[in-house]
Amino acid sequence: MAKKIDYDLIILGAGPAGMTAGIYAARKQLDTLILTGDIGGQATWSADVENYLGYIYISGPELVRKFEEHLLKFPVDIEYTRAAKLSQINSGFRVDTEDGRVFTAKSVIVATGKSPRMLNVPGEKEYVAKGVTYCATCDGPLFAGKNVAVVGGGNSGLDAAVQLMKICPKVYIIEATERLRADAVLVDRVRASGNVDILTNTLVKSIHGNMLVDRITVENTSTGEVRDISVEGVFVEVGLAPNTDFIKDLLPLNEYGEVAVDCAGRTPIPGLYAAGDVTIDPEKQIIIAAGDGAKAALGAYSYLVRLPSATDWSTEATCET
Amino acid sequence: MAKKIDYDLIILGAGPAGMTAGIYAARKQLDTLILTGDIGGQATWSADVENYLGYIYISGPELVRKFEEHLLKFPVDIEYTRAAKLSQINSGFRVDTEDGRVFTAKSVIVATGKSPRMLNVPGEKEYVAKGVTYCATCDGPLFAGKNVAVVGGGNSGLDAAVQLMKICPKVYIIEATERLRADAVLVDRVRASGNVDILTNTLVKSIHGNMLVDRITVENTSTGEVRDISVEGVFVEVGLAPNTDFIKDLLPLNEYGEVAVDCAGRTPIPGLYAAGDVTIDPEKQIIIAAGDGAKAALGAYSYLVRLPSATDWSTEATCET
Repeated sequence: MAKKIDYDLIILGAGPAGMTAGIYAARKQLDTLILTGDIGGQATWSADVENYLGYIYISGPELVRKFEEHLLKFPVDIEYTRAAKLSQINSGFRVDTEDGRVFTAKSVIVATGKSPRMLNVPGEKEYVAKGVTYCATCDGPLFAGKNVAVVGGGNSGLDAAVQLMKICPKVYIIEATERLRADAVLVDRVRASGNVDILTNTLVKSIHGNMLVDRITVENTSTGEVRDISVEGVFVEVGLAPNTDFIKDLLPLNEYGEVAVDCAGRTPIPGLYAAGDVTIDPEKQIIIAAGDGAKAALGAYSYLVRLPSATDWSTEATCET
Repeated sequence: MAKKIDYDLIILGAGPAGMTAGIYAARKQLDTLILTGDIGGQATWSADVENYLGYIYISGPELVRKFEEHLLKFPVDIEYTRAAKLSQINSGFRVDTEDGRVFTAKSVIVATGKSPRMLNVPGEKEYVAKGVTYCATCDGPLFAGKNVAVVGGGNSGLDAAVQLMKICPKVYIIEATERLRADAVLVDRVRASGNVDILTNTLVKSIHGNMLVDRITVENTSTGEVRDISVEGVFVEVGLAPNTDFIKDLLPLNEYGEVAVDCAGRTPIPGLYAAGDVTIDPEKQIIIAAGDGAKAALGAYSYLVRLPSATDWSTEATCET
């Protein structure tokens, strides 16, 4: 448990954006707390990263280990809980955490990223990690030799299917609309495989099993037919949702629930910044999140040194490479 | 010499922004040319880099070597010349290079960065690399045991002085205004050293020597006194200027000569992007330039696939980690 409760800066999230923000804040000698459920965020789920400048090829988990090792070199407090609510108080901001604690800070950076969307059907929650998974890259290899379903016919669903069709005897792609929405190159590859069944106009109604998943119930919305399919794995690939529930009353969000920021990561509330996949920035990339995390931290620093109460960091250089 | 002259995309500059743009463009299968005077840009001049996420500590030159190795894994053409002029043509853009060649492309990313400002005094050009230098980090060690002058009393000048005062018997800081403009912590350190002379209200009028620099002529603008100072090194630290001469007739620049862009790196001209230190982005950092280089390349890709002539890349996924 953290001994302190009041900080200069609280960073919510520890993906590439939050970690870079933490490093920059610490180098500016800001008293910084990171509140996060995990280290790495979505970067952890990437099998192969070939476009993070400086690493020709590295797995997502390995890159995240390097990020974490880097962050931990700096004096930043980390608490493994998520923000349940963010609110404004006289001295700045108050964060109520999911585990019932309260922290305060003069400035906050929201870098909570995105999480996979759930199907919200009976059986889904019960069978998470017992056959239901949201990360084909992480969990795919566990299902070698088993029949599986991929729910979602977009690029991420087809990416999952391409990976699974090599190790699973049968892969079902279940798509709610009348056609797959993925790039042609992926669709062609899946169609050519011989062991992928594409079920369009089809909804997953429920997930069943004993200790582990053994079948799903699906409905064909054209014909009304309802039937069971035997699968031991259900890969849910129906998109990502930004983790912004805890600020939906505080900040303007766009139609996707993303936080509106300007180019410097500023929100409309002075002292409150956002960076990474949680924002309206259309490109969701590790290197972009990292760069924007640095911008947000330098913005927060610049905000803090201009507060009437600021004394601690006023002699710090504002320019460095 | 490049065999091709027409490309999908030309990237001007190969610092962190240009190199990341190159990697992202190549991964989108854009036919890409980089025109650049050097590899690495200002990143090469950094002695210590401790804030590039993923590398706890690395020297600037070593980090640039990793960047270059990464870039060279991808099929991107590189020509070692700079743009002398960028202009619009029917099919997109035309680049006239300093070495008299012409290249064309449908889209261009300006990532030409910044260069050190010169003093523009007699003797300066003649003695470049013969005592006159613009990079204390690169060249400081060559002047161990010699008396040197640092021209410029801002943070970069004082940074240079702090480094040089440990290895040089005497360091002169020459500042045109009435006081040093650097952070107090640096000024204190320089004042406490005992071997740094601070000359305010002082201009360098000319630089002299035989084969190498042996003295400078300075003028005290308060008293009018002109005198010579014996130094073997002149470290020019009077700021950086964006490399935008070749586009000053094409694009709006701000008061510092930087390219105006939106959050996605778009300039007012469709198909023309900019990223990195050459832009109005206030924070000049390696990780930020890299992230913005990725944004610009993805922007250029998105522009190109929407051109009526686009066919080659239309089946590429637009979303990747």
